[in-house]
Amino acid sequence: MRPIVIFYGFYLLCFGLGVACVVCVYLWNSKWRGGFAWDGSPLQFNWHPVLMVTGLVVVYGNGAVLYRIPLTWGQNKLPWKLLHAALMLLALVLSIVGLCAVFDFHNAQKTPNLYSIHSWIGIAATALFAMQWVAGMAGFLLPCSPISLRKRLKPMHVWLGGSILTLSIAACISGINEKLFFVLKGINMTQPYSALPPEALLGNSLGVLIIAFGLVVLKILSTREWQRPDSRPEDMAYTPLLQEENE
Amino acid sequence: MRPIVIFYGFYLLCFGLGVACVVCVYLWNSKWRGGFAWDGSPLQFNWHPVLMVTGLVVVYGNGAVLYRIPLTWGQNKLPWKLLHAALMLLALVLSIVGLCAVFDFHNAQKTPNLYSIHSWIGIAATALFAMQWVAGMAGFLLPCSPISLRKRLKPMHVWLGGSILTLSIAACISGINEKLFFVLKGINMTQPYSALPPEALLGNSLGVLIIAFGLVVLKILSTREWQRPDSRPEDMAYTPLLQEENE
Repeated sequence: MRPIVIFYGFYLLCFGLGVACVVCVYLWNSKWRGGFAWDGSPLQFNWHPVLMVTGLVVVYGNGAVLYRIPLTWGQNKLPWKLLHAALMLLALVLSIVGLCAVFDFHNAQKTPNLYSIHSWIGIAATALFAMQWVAGMAGFLLPCSPISLRKRLKPMHVWLGGSILTLSIAACISGINEKLFFVLKGINMTQPYSALPPEALLGNSLGVLIIAFGLVVLKILSTREWQRPDSRPEDMAYTPLLQEENE
Repeated sequence: MRPIVIFYGFYLLCFGLGVACVVCVYLWNSKWRGGFAWDGSPLQFNWHPVLMVTGLVVVYGNGAVLYRIPLTWGQNKLPWKLLHAALMLLALVLSIVGLCAVFDFHNAQKTPNLYSIHSWIGIAATALFAMQWVAGMAGFLLPCSPISLRKRLKPMHVWLGGSILTLSIAACISGINEKLFFVLKGINMTQPYSALPPEALLGNSLGVLIIAFGLVVLKILSTREWQRPDSRPEDMAYTPLLQEENE
């Protein structure tokens, strides 16, 4: 099978799994957890998983694989750079609002913030993502950034991009696990997590979808033949933005 | 700085973080959780984190980066293949005994098995690892396996190797998070997880060490200049084992 067909197979899988993640986390929080509000109640917490999964996993992953789409290769790179930066900014804003939701909820409930390993990993992922966005903007989009800086920055940018996704997957899985143990305690005529009631199956399925989405994104990012030809290591010819047509 | 010096810097970091993970998980379970037994009591459960972190993270990660050590490049590949297979077999056996510990403990306590997303991800990582080991043995160590099969198998083997490590990191973080919420409930004069008592700090530190170890291993695996020269994509010349001196 031609590599381009295999790429588009993986790309469709990535896109489909991303949509399934968003639908699944939205359904869980709207139908099983009572919906959404911004009033310090548990309904405010419900924004947290929806915004983190949508921002830090799905929009982030789709932004990361953008340059791999062969359709974009023959074209001027600048519009795709701007789209990459815009998608990543959207992902970052969604993640930060998702963090505000849980901080506000904890403060309203007098619950401490940032003590669990889930929260440590999640805040580290978002902080690294914010730093990565600023460094990427300064290094790859500002016309004054020199070629030598871009050359040194690129491998670090790619590696840190994959690492942030790995962190956010670990944060999501630990968050889903924690939430299902918290809410499915088997009291008041409800079934415990261990009996795998429908909500547990939905939450676990969300975890499986996030893992599958993350592994597909990391596969697309790590496959050398799917890299934009002018970005492959053997012919990296970096030129500052706005100075060369196809940069 | 020369690439070989940077590699050995990362390799030492990988080795040091691996040792720190094992020391940390052992200390947690021996000093804070009461030690070890194989009698269906909570002391039997304590084998689970120690063996999973040691096998599925630390020995696995060290086995994965073995071919990247430049010291091995000028030598016959066969002894290093056998050491890679042996380290991976040790990692697999430790992981399986670690799973037996928790299954036996659950059965003795009449607790259901395999319902949480932590357990789903963990069992998937171990099952994929077992399949990977068998496929790797058959594909790369049996003299009868043809060159064409090795060529097709290699990218899949490398990608699945990284994916299994990503799964095991997610399983470890969710497991540490779950365990600390289970045991640090703030009853009987003990401090809750949210007050970050010493045990919580130790458990969270273990999570941070596992994440750091995993990211360093994935960095070593994904850096093209650190690949064994005869395994790089541009000059992949596969020959069946035992037919060529340096295979």
